[in-house]
Amino acid sequence: MQALHFDGKRLALADRPEPVARPGEVVVQVRRAGICNTDLEIARGYMGFQGVLGHEVLGVADGKRVCAEINFACLACEACRRGERNHCPNRTVLGILGHDGGLAERVAVPGAALHEVPGSVSDEAAAFAEPLAAALHVLDDVRAGRGDRIAVIGDGKLGLLCAMALATTPARVTLVGHHERHLALVKGVAATLEKDLPRERVFDAVVEATGSPSGLELALAIVRPLGTIVLKSTYAGKSALALAPVVIDEVRVLGSRCGSIEASLRALDAGLVDPTPLLEATLPLGRALEAFERAGQPGVLKVHVSP
Amino acid sequence: MQALHFDGKRLALADRPEPVARPGEVVVQVRRAGICNTDLEIARGYMGFQGVLGHEVLGVADGKRVCAEINFACLACEACRRGERNHCPNRTVLGILGHDGGLAERVAVPGAALHEVPGSVSDEAAAFAEPLAAALHVLDDVRAGRGDRIAVIGDGKLGLLCAMALATTPARVTLVGHHERHLALVKGVAATLEKDLPRERVFDAVVEATGSPSGLELALAIVRPLGTIVLKSTYAGKSALALAPVVIDEVRVLGSRCGSIEASLRALDAGLVDPTPLLEATLPLGRALEAFERAGQPGVLKVHVSP
Repeated sequence: MQALHFDGKRLALADRPEPVARPGEVVVQVRRAGICNTDLEIARGYMGFQGVLGHEVLGVADGKRVCAEINFACLACEACRRGERNHCPNRTVLGILGHDGGLAERVAVPGAALHEVPGSVSDEAAAFAEPLAAALHVLDDVRAGRGDRIAVIGDGKLGLLCAMALATTPARVTLVGHHERHLALVKGVAATLEKDLPRERVFDAVVEATGSPSGLELALAIVRPLGTIVLKSTYAGKSALALAPVVIDEVRVLGSRCGSIEASLRALDAGLVDPTPLLEATLPLGRALEAFERAGQPGVLKVHVSP
Repeated sequence: MQALHFDGKRLALADRPEPVARPGEVVVQVRRAGICNTDLEIARGYMGFQGVLGHEVLGVADGKRVCAEINFACLACEACRRGERNHCPNRTVLGILGHDGGLAERVAVPGAALHEVPGSVSDEAAAFAEPLAAALHVLDDVRAGRGDRIAVIGDGKLGLLCAMALATTPARVTLVGHHERHLALVKGVAATLEKDLPRERVFDAVVEATGSPSGLELALAIVRPLGTIVLKSTYAGKSALALAPVVIDEVRVLGSRCGSIEASLRALDAGLVDPTPLLEATLPLGRALEAFERAGQPGVLKVHVSP
């Protein structure tokens, strides 16, 4: 079958063996798969992954449309017994760590990881279930009640989805970015260019989704004492940070990664979030390399591939 | 009166005007005052403070032994109305910010900031109420139940007090430091030299009290995924940090500063903590400069001054 494969050095549209379902796994016929910044980083060597890319997948199994959780836990270790499956040290991760992904015609995943997509949710929207789950997970870490002031910094894909997630709450949300076109995509929030943002420490919570080492510094400049910073960005390398203000102002800095696909599909089904304005293009699998290149261009949001 | 005074350039034992009680303030006759690392930093220019040093004070007012909260809030601003007085933007801080401290014969403080010292608590112990309050405040940020594994890194004054605070809980506490002599001062915890500590990510919580930029890096190397790091150290300058692991492992990094003097006096009264083994010397106020120099020597723990 055709698949977008990274061999550790080169990304290629390759003819790969058909996936074989191991015990408990099912083979999913892929209908649509998204390209994420993590994929772009993997193709630069991040995670040391070799295999088929793609962890934002909508497919069909047993005649039903399905989306998959992406962390496949061992279910036997201490972390799994604590219910912390996304942090199982023995886990594989779809298209990221030890498990072939869904930028392919077919992909094998554990049956337990699959969730049926409600009929009201379009294919386009359902393929956002995974990144939207990561965005909704922010709500687990911040209080977003009436009167709470929350900033999202970063108007790339993740920042926009986080702003959409927060727009479902009664909090007063400010989205901060660099692209007027992106800022306009999120309804129900105030939006501002970063250069126009007053450097005042007024936000109860700041979601850092810039993908840049300077993001945390900006977050610290606008979060109030006792406020919360949720870190969503991952980037290689080190940041130089003055930590004394974190201590003096008792700021809480919380790392945040994956969320629940099930919760994400529920939010889509309820019409609480519509991520499809982020979709810039859908290309056939045969043009996956072109799709990949396009997804990496500055200012481009989501690109989907459809076999 | 005599007082240890910093004029912005030079620290001196000076003849200073008697403190004048402003409305709501009372003049406290100082019996004992401790020297803290913050004082050493102030004498190097930290905080830009000019005035009488000293924020760890035991004194007598109206015939009663008293200890003082050190943050004097305006009680009128939004932070104060939220009950976050320690973060009032208009606050003064005893001996640190806009308010003369207690390394003096007498000091004026708001009457509302004073707490009577229970009769069971010695002068020596009571003068630890402020730093012990900061240490006990760690318990507000970590779960310290039976089976929880908590590391305290740093065996200076603050690290030792944090370990003593955690030793009052059912958690399994490991104190990590560089000085065998210091490590032996805390009862009821496991202790290890940093060089002997396995770099394994097994701790549910890590209290970073090293006073060094490398402390957070060590904390990240031993905290488990979804674990908590409590930052207690303040130091000038920036640290170079790889933040991706904080996100991927969803670590919580919480700044932590001052605690409640009242809670600290209660713990001392109940005999839960005995900080006095940290006391290395008590010098008369006339030898405050010598006391200050001694407190700054490597490996020296607490030095008190008694007028």
